[in-house]
Amino acid sequence: MSTATFTVNGMTCGHCVSSVKEEVEEVAGVTSVEVDLASGLLTVVSDAPVDRSDISKAVEEAGYELAG
Amino acid sequence: MSTATFTVNGMTCGHCVSSVKEEVEEVAGVTSVEVDLASGLLTVVSDAPVDRSDISKAVEEAGYELAG
Repeated sequence: MSTATFTVNGMTCGHCVSSVKEEVEEVAGVTSVEVDLASGLLTVVSDAPVDRSDISKAVEEAGYELAG
Repeated sequence: MSTATFTVNGMTCGHCVSSVKEEVEEVAGVTSVEVDLASGLLTVVSDAPVDRSDISKAVEEAGYELAG
């Protein structure tokens, strides 16, 4: 079990949060995803450590981007 | 054929626009709906003039509200 946190830029509403959640939940090995709109905090729980690039791609598919 | 315009408060992204569009399109008699995110302008084309209250209800169902 592994937990990683990221910051997502550009989310403005609950729909944005849902889009990010849906895409990141589809990343292989991810078991749970939390997204906080106000802070942009994305918390990803997975079976094994996830690649930042996989999370980044998923966030971009939703139409947003990781900070940093 | 009748065209009416309203202003919607609270939309922040394209998902918000889609939600409003979907709900207003379901109002009886409505044939076409345009929503501009930047201005909040909602343009409703309908067979006969629509009641503001019907449009207001639809916008509220989407999670937003009419200005004024």
